[in-house]
Amino acid sequence: MILNPKKQTDFRRMQHRLHEIIFEADTRAGKWFDVILILSILSSVLVVMLDSVAAVKVRYGIFLHWMEWTFTLLFTLEYLLRLSCVRKPGRYAISFLGIVDLLAILPTYLSLMLPGSQYMIVIRILRVLRVFRVLKLAPYVGEASILIQALLASRRKVAIFLLTILTLVVIFGSLMYLIEGAGNGFTSIPRSIYWAIVTMTTVGYGDISPKTNLGQALASLIMILGYAIIAVPTGIVTAELSRAGHKKISTQACPACMAHGHDANAVFCKFCSERLNPEKESN
Amino acid sequence: MILNPKKQTDFRRMQHRLHEIIFEADTRAGKWFDVILILSILSSVLVVMLDSVAAVKVRYGIFLHWMEWTFTLLFTLEYLLRLSCVRKPGRYAISFLGIVDLLAILPTYLSLMLPGSQYMIVIRILRVLRVFRVLKLAPYVGEASILIQALLASRRKVAIFLLTILTLVVIFGSLMYLIEGAGNGFTSIPRSIYWAIVTMTTVGYGDISPKTNLGQALASLIMILGYAIIAVPTGIVTAELSRAGHKKISTQACPACMAHGHDANAVFCKFCSERLNPEKESN
Amino acid sequence: MILNPKKQTDFRRMQHRLHEIIFEADTRAGKWFDVILILSILSSVLVVMLDSVAAVKVRYGIFLHWMEWTFTLLFTLEYLLRLSCVRKPGRYAISFLGIVDLLAILPTYLSLMLPGSQYMIVIRILRVLRVFRVLKLAPYVGEASILIQALLASRRKVAIFLLTILTLVVIFGSLMYLIEGAGNGFTSIPRSIYWAIVTMTTVGYGDISPKTNLGQALASLIMILGYAIIAVPTGIVTAELSRAGHKKISTQACPACMAHGHDANAVFCKFCSERLNPEKESN
Amino acid sequence: MILNPKKQTDFRRMQHRLHEIIFEADTRAGKWFDVILILSILSSVLVVMLDSVAAVKVRYGIFLHWMEWTFTLLFTLEYLLRLSCVRKPGRYAISFLGIVDLLAILPTYLSLMLPGSQYMIVIRILRVLRVFRVLKLAPYVGEASILIQALLASRRKVAIFLLTILTLVVIFGSLMYLIEGAGNGFTSIPRSIYWAIVTMTTVGYGDISPKTNLGQALASLIMILGYAIIAVPTGIVTAELSRAGHKKISTQACPACMAHGHDANAVFCKFCSERLNPEKESN
Repeated sequence: MILNPKKQTDFRRMQHRLHEIIFEADTRAGKWFDVILILSILSSVLVVMLDSVAAVKVRYGIFLHWMEWTFTLLFTLEYLLRLSCVRKPGRYAISFLGIVDLLAILPTYLSLMLPGSQYMIVIRILRVLRVFRVLKLAPYVGEASILIQALLASRRKVAIFLLTILTLVVIFGSLMYLIEGAGNGFTSIPRSIYWAIVTMTTVGYGDISPKTNLGQALASLIMILGYAIIAVPTGIVTAELSRAGHKKISTQACPACMAHGHDANAVFCKFCSERLNPEKESN
Repeated sequence: MILNPKKQTDFRRMQHRLHEIIFEADTRAGKWFDVILILSILSSVLVVMLDSVAAVKVRYGIFLHWMEWTFTLLFTLEYLLRLSCVRKPGRYAISFLGIVDLLAILPTYLSLMLPGSQYMIVIRILRVLRVFRVLKLAPYVGEASILIQALLASRRKVAIFLLTILTLVVIFGSLMYLIEGAGNGFTSIPRSIYWAIVTMTTVGYGDISPKTNLGQALASLIMILGYAIIAVPTGIVTAELSRAGHKKISTQACPACMAHGHDANAVFCKFCSERLNPEKESN
Repeated sequence: MILNPKKQTDFRRMQHRLHEIIFEADTRAGKWFDVILILSILSSVLVVMLDSVAAVKVRYGIFLHWMEWTFTLLFTLEYLLRLSCVRKPGRYAISFLGIVDLLAILPTYLSLMLPGSQYMIVIRILRVLRVFRVLKLAPYVGEASILIQALLASRRKVAIFLLTILTLVVIFGSLMYLIEGAGNGFTSIPRSIYWAIVTMTTVGYGDISPKTNLGQALASLIMILGYAIIAVPTGIVTAELSRAGHKKISTQACPACMAHGHDANAVFCKFCSERLNPEKESN
Repeated sequence: MILNPKKQTDFRRMQHRLHEIIFEADTRAGKWFDVILILSILSSVLVVMLDSVAAVKVRYGIFLHWMEWTFTLLFTLEYLLRLSCVRKPGRYAISFLGIVDLLAILPTYLSLMLPGSQYMIVIRILRVLRVFRVLKLAPYVGEASILIQALLASRRKVAIFLLTILTLVVIFGSLMYLIEGAGNGFTSIPRSIYWAIVTMTTVGYGDISPKTNLGQALASLIMILGYAIIAVPTGIVTAELSRAGHKKISTQACPACMAHGHDANAVFCKFCSERLNPEKESN
């Protein structure tokens, strides 16, 4: 079907307006849309939660069922509108937020075709991911990116740290299995490793705990070690965050020798003495 | 009633003297007043606490009742004196400390009119807020404001952090509900989320704990994650506190020797003794 | 009794030699003395510990009793020698280490005069303080003083922090007492405050834990708060320790205007342009 | 047996090629070898773990037994190849990794000669150490060395910290033994010290917990102390890590404009473009 130019322009304008409302938050309508969307998401998550409480389900089960379907239909409509108003629907559909949006509506439909109750519950949980959409509203993107950059900058140190922790819990878990034995709750090496993780992270449920003297001595060692080790990731992240806030480095390269990493206040290149372009304040 | 000038001056002087004693702590009388006030507050909180211990209430119930009324009447008198000696009583009454002062005496009176025991207990608890008045004495205001400023400066990062934690506990809580089921104590999603918070914050009561292998594996993941995540708020606050404490460095160079890095309060260049240009306050 | 000069000199020399052995550790004899002393202290603490284990006491009770007396007599001899070889015995006796030395031997003697077994145990525990003497040997005094200085520098911030924690646990403890009630283990406000401390410090025994929905919701809030609050003391101490390692500040005052706080590299006073005395490297 | 020159050269070449594959990871074959080795190690650890689970052992015991022997024979072959292709086999054999490699294969052979099941289990656990070999692959050596250096630089402060903790748990453990007594689970001083460690490290199993009022009050003190003390090692490691990451600043001033604060790698003054004197390495 070929639209005449007038109609095509109208369609474009409407598409543009819809995009402004759904994807942006700097107009009055766009803001209201986002606020209502977030409240709907939180409500629908609440519905799923309440549905899992036996006492509530008995009394309000049918109402919750209807609420769930209402929200699902609303989110489906929203998903279709999103697809229709972006320039490249395919790119949106395979973006992270697009996939989350789809996963947020699929489970309810799937629960129709697959009436197996166990299955249904497994799928339903994915809808909780909808909470992530709330983040869209946040004007905190700048701060979040500082945090993420600090975590990324320290990812290698954290990886080494995690590897050390894993090695320690495997060894200590196995040792405790030998020392305590199945009689005291340490029924297998995997379970003993679970205990070692519970202990080293200072969670300490107490569902499994050493009973023998040697076991308690080794457990004490593990606890003090865990207590000392917690200092390491904290130190890593803190050092990285402190660094992020320190000395400003110019983003400019020397026009002559192309060297990077000049201080923001540098006038001449420190490697070849060429005059640098004056830094333009951008932020 | 019109007071003659002499009497009015007398009243003003007395009002001023009272203000000095009650609101300030730099005279002998003012200091004594504050010390006695704090001891009274602590004693009255102790009375409420002891009153809640069954064994104590049986034996000393009447005495505690009298003590409670004595403290309430004393604090009421103090509240009225405060109102009478400030220039603008209305402004004091709606200030934070004024409201706390009022809330500290109201519950006991309300317990007379509303004899319902359950109600009474709910009201009584508000009196514990009286403890806040102790802070008045503290000469630590400067240090406290550094702490508060550091926390305020990092409020956005902390908000992002809390949002991440909440999202994680909702997802992990729901997953554990599916994995463990009601039989192992994970009776509903809200309760499973409660468990996830208990685990992620490394509290670990052990009233609910995973029993299945898959559940213990996921719990291990949550614990290690929680252990790594604790590094983030620490890093945020530490970086902020370090920044707050860094000595201010002037951005000026010496007009004579061009040396940088002078303290913000420096008057002369520390390298060549030339007089520096006065720093213009920019922030 | 008047000693002739020769003998008096001999006595002085012996006293000096004894002082060198007992109080110093830079001679061969002094080092050996300290090593043996520390091993004796650790052994005697071990004896007290083993004596408390019922199974061990039944079999080795008499041997442990003899060991205890042997150590006590040895430490008494040592205490007397210490008193005899210092210039001012009175000053040693009332010094911190002197009091600890005395308290380390008193309990065993007191257990003779007061045969009440409960009493005896109470006294015995003080001997564990003997462990503090081990610290004498440590060549780590410099590092320890950095730690102590960092802690002292942050004592006000820590005091504010502790006051905040105490206020929070009193309020939250009382609230939980109202919400949960005596039926769920929250038998009194003091016990509920104990629970709040157990929770906020992320210890989480699980001997008392909330059962009601509202209680678990409030508990979740307390845990997340405690988790966030742990960042504060860490931040304080870290910032202080980082500072300790930073920019060196000269200990000199300006000869002309007496101003303090010059950088170690400053040549002229930054306040009055007077030439500073050259810094003498002392450490 | 004397090899002719041709054959000897061939042997050398083969030995060199083998060394490249087994000890290095920069050729295609070397990379594959390492990846397969790590997968084998992880699989063999998994086999040991599964073997400890009663339900799995009943069904797959024989298969796991065969797997264990296959891995052991493979690792034995690998160990012999390693010995044969290094220049100095003796030095490899007594290196840390060499000993771990040997310990990783010995237990299975020893389990043949010593059929005592208890013994066998004790030996088997050493094979878990094989996990350490995984670290060989890690390209994270640089980051790990920063972490290790930071930990080494703070080893004295950490030692003081640990000594303080140990002293505190001995004293508090003994006090709790006196206060609570054997009836409430504090059956001996060593067990009470175990409880103090569990509490101070905020693990909090709850297998032993104070029941008396005085005991709960002291426990509260220990918890808050532990909570505050956790700040110290974190502060130490963080300060050290921050220091390690600080950009090196040259101590030189520009010969022309006397400006300070040039980076250690700067060749020209960043303020006036004068050539700087070459930095003399002092440390």
